[in-house]
Amino acid sequence: MTVSVLRTADAWWVQTPTGAAKISTTATSTGELLEDRAAVDAAAASEGTVAVDDLDMLSPVTAPCRVVAQMTNFESHVVDSGMDPKTVPLTFFRKSSASISGPHGEIVRPSHVTLLDYEVEIGLVVGRDVPVGTSLTDANLADYIAGLTVTNDVSARDIQLPQTQFYEAKSYPTFTPVGPALVLLDPAELARFGDLRLRLSVNGDERQNSVVDGDMLYRPLQALQALTRFQHLSAGDLILTGTPSGTALKAPPKPIELIGNLLPPAVKWKAFFTRQAKNPNYLQYGDRIEATIATDDGAIDLGAQRLTVRHA
Amino acid sequence: MTVSVLRTADAWWVQTPTGAAKISTTATSTGELLEDRAAVDAAAASEGTVAVDDLDMLSPVTAPCRVVAQMTNFESHVVDSGMDPKTVPLTFFRKSSASISGPHGEIVRPSHVTLLDYEVEIGLVVGRDVPVGTSLTDANLADYIAGLTVTNDVSARDIQLPQTQFYEAKSYPTFTPVGPALVLLDPAELARFGDLRLRLSVNGDERQNSVVDGDMLYRPLQALQALTRFQHLSAGDLILTGTPSGTALKAPPKPIELIGNLLPPAVKWKAFFTRQAKNPNYLQYGDRIEATIATDDGAIDLGAQRLTVRHA
Repeated sequence: MTVSVLRTADAWWVQTPTGAAKISTTATSTGELLEDRAAVDAAAASEGTVAVDDLDMLSPVTAPCRVVAQMTNFESHVVDSGMDPKTVPLTFFRKSSASISGPHGEIVRPSHVTLLDYEVEIGLVVGRDVPVGTSLTDANLADYIAGLTVTNDVSARDIQLPQTQFYEAKSYPTFTPVGPALVLLDPAELARFGDLRLRLSVNGDERQNSVVDGDMLYRPLQALQALTRFQHLSAGDLILTGTPSGTALKAPPKPIELIGNLLPPAVKWKAFFTRQAKNPNYLQYGDRIEATIATDDGAIDLGAQRLTVRHA
Repeated sequence: MTVSVLRTADAWWVQTPTGAAKISTTATSTGELLEDRAAVDAAAASEGTVAVDDLDMLSPVTAPCRVVAQMTNFESHVVDSGMDPKTVPLTFFRKSSASISGPHGEIVRPSHVTLLDYEVEIGLVVGRDVPVGTSLTDANLADYIAGLTVTNDVSARDIQLPQTQFYEAKSYPTFTPVGPALVLLDPAELARFGDLRLRLSVNGDERQNSVVDGDMLYRPLQALQALTRFQHLSAGDLILTGTPSGTALKAPPKPIELIGNLLPPAVKWKAFFTRQAKNPNYLQYGDRIEATIATDDGAIDLGAQRLTVRHA
């Protein structure tokens, strides 16, 4: 049975069949909570006392922590982005953990941003210290990944594309909503990673809907094996594993891209952004975004994120 | 007078006219040391007891910390990279702090890397907490930047270019040599930032030599104003401010780049790497790299980094 950990301003909770049960712990960070697993399990075995809907939930992953993200990691999104799934390399970038926000709040568009986009992604939550050079295998992967959570890799496309580096455009405050739950998994449950379906809708209109199996290119084991060549990880760190097709941004047709490459950058981007400004799929003030991740049989269910778009 | 802080495995030191004076502190991280400024100043006012050359120096910036780097921030390097200085945006990326190494050790080329390159850069060391939204001005900049240090943004070009994101290619262990000194500056000294000359030689052959004034595009104030829109910073964090021209990598002539864009990525990169493999300026086994940063009058002198290239 999975264990769903929730967080509010003053406590940690486990979701039980009868409601949320408070965890008896002094942990102030996700990393500390994961080291207090006995307290989590005790709460999971107790009676829930509070209706989950009555909790004002925060992100179950606390900041500061490392937030590492995989670039273009679903075949369907790679094609959308104008790249070839056969040659796209396993690639990481960083997000600021100051971008982490709760699962039922707001996404705030900074005033200098115009093209605001969404990306539902499975978040891996690291369960223990992973020094550079750690040897990861199918057999020990579940020792290092404590659980999964719903994340949205919110992106300012008009910043991201001219800068080429994704760090700033995906790091503004509220650009990484996390939760509602940090769902702790045992090895057999983690082995069902491929069955997870990611869905995202805007104002009830479904934009993203894809299952990991058949679409994700670089799985968590391969990603972590690459990452531990250069990145030390700690309990409570968060790894975003990429988004499937359906984002507002789509690459221009190949001939237009090739002509664009002949233009000076300022001219190329002006033409591109003029075209994109007519695209109605970018997020607008008041838009309601719902994101869910679960196996179709419900055995693993990371819950639903519900966010509203506001302007700074 | 600047204060040059050094670090060894068992102590912190200040460089004085008579040698290195031990700092009486319990600090174990650069952030903690910067909070113990009285101890630093007491050592600076005392007699040095150990010859600086006898110290086995480590990086004066300890890991873990945040390492943020500015992309293509010198006009001369922007041109080398095939971009237009008038349109290149202020852009950041992250490096793993597991890449930090000492000033007199080795740069280790991972076995899967072929095109190993160097980039001498001025490192800004953050002196205190900088929450997102902090207002930075010319008048308070020196409150947030404690000092400067020599850094080398070592880069695996054959990883960096196909990935497009710079994070992994610049984050392998030993890819951020730091030091020898963390040079603490008062506001008047920091105001001379524009007079700093960056130099780097390989086996005595000078490859990089440029002064900030007239070449650097986005200065520390502008960079930090942009960074604090999305990145929380803490004492001991490190910001790399970009490198001038002279790296081994140079962009292909524009017509070749445009033809390259017509090719499938695998073909394009194969042709590019075949050409680059004939470039003798990439770092080879046994190469000795010396990097220095100072004002021409010597009033600010960050010291000399001396590194040797090894293979994993």
